[in-house]
Amino acid sequence: MPESLKLHVTGMTCGGCENAVHLTLTQLRGVREVTASHKQNSVNVTYDTGQVTAEKIKQAIEDLGYHVAA
Amino acid sequence: MPESLKLHVTGMTCGGCENAVHLTLTQLRGVREVTASHKQNSVNVTYDTGQVTAEKIKQAIEDLGYHVAA
Repeated sequence: MPESLKLHVTGMTCGGCENAVHLTLTQLRGVREVTASHKQNSVNVTYDTGQVTAEKIKQAIEDLGYHVAA
Repeated sequence: MPESLKLHVTGMTCGGCENAVHLTLTQLRGVREVTASHKQNSVNVTYDTGQVTAEKIKQAIEDLGYHVAA
């Protein structure tokens, strides 16, 4: 089932950061849509709960050096 | 054998971009050291040629949305 995740993410400070987050997440199997905004410190993700978890998505963002607020 | 690669990379426009490149490349098996500079449009990588290829390193940078000059 598709589900939406709205994350507060800090550390993105330009369009290149947004792009890196966008491309990295869309490479994860099960991720359908990603919108990243450094101005709003937000990353919104639509994903299939059967294929990927919110934890895995958050970890992928953290692995790029950005911080996901709990 | 460790080898050094000096790449001209465009599209990084802040420290967050540098960080994303740095963390992504250091997660590749065989990569020893990474220095990324958005001011110099450079990414310098020291890696073990037996474990990872220059092509794979370049591809990982491209996959983040940054551009590696030939």
